[in-house]
Amino acid sequence: MKIKAYKKDAEYTYTLGVFETIELLKNKPELVWRVYIKSNSYKNSGLKIIAQICQEQHIELIESDHTIEKLSKKENCFAIAVIKKYQMTLQEGNHVVLVNPGDMGNMGTIMRTMLGFHYRNLAIIRPGVDIFDPRVLRSSMGAIFHLRVEYFDSFADYIERFPDHDIYPLMLKGAKNIHQVQKDPKRNHSLIFGNESSGLPDDYLDYGQSIFIPHSHQIDSLNLSMALGITLAHFSKDEFKDRTVL
Amino acid sequence: MKIKAYKKDAEYTYTLGVFETIELLKNKPELVWRVYIKSNSYKNSGLKIIAQICQEQHIELIESDHTIEKLSKKENCFAIAVIKKYQMTLQEGNHVVLVNPGDMGNMGTIMRTMLGFHYRNLAIIRPGVDIFDPRVLRSSMGAIFHLRVEYFDSFADYIERFPDHDIYPLMLKGAKNIHQVQKDPKRNHSLIFGNESSGLPDDYLDYGQSIFIPHSHQIDSLNLSMALGITLAHFSKDEFKDRTVL
Repeated sequence: MKIKAYKKDAEYTYTLGVFETIELLKNKPELVWRVYIKSNSYKNSGLKIIAQICQEQHIELIESDHTIEKLSKKENCFAIAVIKKYQMTLQEGNHVVLVNPGDMGNMGTIMRTMLGFHYRNLAIIRPGVDIFDPRVLRSSMGAIFHLRVEYFDSFADYIERFPDHDIYPLMLKGAKNIHQVQKDPKRNHSLIFGNESSGLPDDYLDYGQSIFIPHSHQIDSLNLSMALGITLAHFSKDEFKDRTVL
Repeated sequence: MKIKAYKKDAEYTYTLGVFETIELLKNKPELVWRVYIKSNSYKNSGLKIIAQICQEQHIELIESDHTIEKLSKKENCFAIAVIKKYQMTLQEGNHVVLVNPGDMGNMGTIMRTMLGFHYRNLAIIRPGVDIFDPRVLRSSMGAIFHLRVEYFDSFADYIERFPDHDIYPLMLKGAKNIHQVQKDPKRNHSLIFGNESSGLPDDYLDYGQSIFIPHSHQIDSLNLSMALGITLAHFSKDEFKDRTVL
């Protein structure tokens, strides 16, 4: 079977790069159909690891400069793993909810930051970026393989599934300064963020406790991933504040 | 005089886009040599503002689709302002110091975040990205025109100029958890960040109070702009924590 350039409705997707491919092989080897590597690149220590895992897991490993060039369109890609797309279902715990996210590059940063602060469940309210796009896989540097991501047709659908979560929509018009917000450590919470350009619509003011991050008026807003990072750091602080080393 | 594509050693640089051009004209009109706009685009409300400021400030305004296409390489650019590069000198106050930053896209996010938390002085220790690159101007969305940015050949040179600052290097090996750090509100501080890939070298542990941002071990590190945003939000919290609206 020939692997074609990624399309949203394809059954498979692929990693582009050694680091992401190793993360995938370590975390979800059962999803991998096949791995392509560049010829004559066994000096790359990452490729040795890839070859070893493929052998242990009986995954087909093919040297094909042609396939790598076709899919990556870049010279500096040495490995590609083709994987079957998979369905994920959110579990209980603290959630991040992105309403209509549009930026692929942001998505990777967001996933890595979530993982950094122990958020492992991501809800995406449609329409939203395709998390299986190879560009998202790449920008997440493998973080996606540690998360559960589920799409919902509407925020109402999401709320119906998780009626007991404390809901915190992040909005410029939010009712409460984040520095004055204390989460209830006994309850699960959901942090809700809007689209990169337009933020959350006003009707989100009616859900739970809306929050703003105070900043100077010389900028319109913090960018989405920055707002998310600051919010996650705030909400997870109790877990991390007593550590004496990283 | 014909305007050529940007080079690091050129005397001039240029904004690419309506928003950045307006920010520039509002904040530093004295630097602007000339503004180019696309023909037949006066329906764009931003271009009306540009035309008005150019008239008031006696700045040459030229319709030239050719120049815009040549410099922007994108179809959706409607205005370009050519400006003479300028020297800036840091002032007293709280500083951000970036040691060998390499990523143009990050730089814009960093500048916007600094402005969001009232940090107006940015030191860059060479080698570091060229802040006058049009891509930086673009990604900063005009924030650069509100900041002072100065290059230093070494961190020692920087320290010599600002010997009374409290120094906080951000490092994975940092000695203190950021959540346990209280700044002295009567003194100026400098927050020091390393390169996107390599961070700060170990010898920065000897300067001032080194700090780490605690996060899970499932990621190697937060990305630079994220670490910076979380740090700036922490250090400026006293200014913002009592606000009841954004």
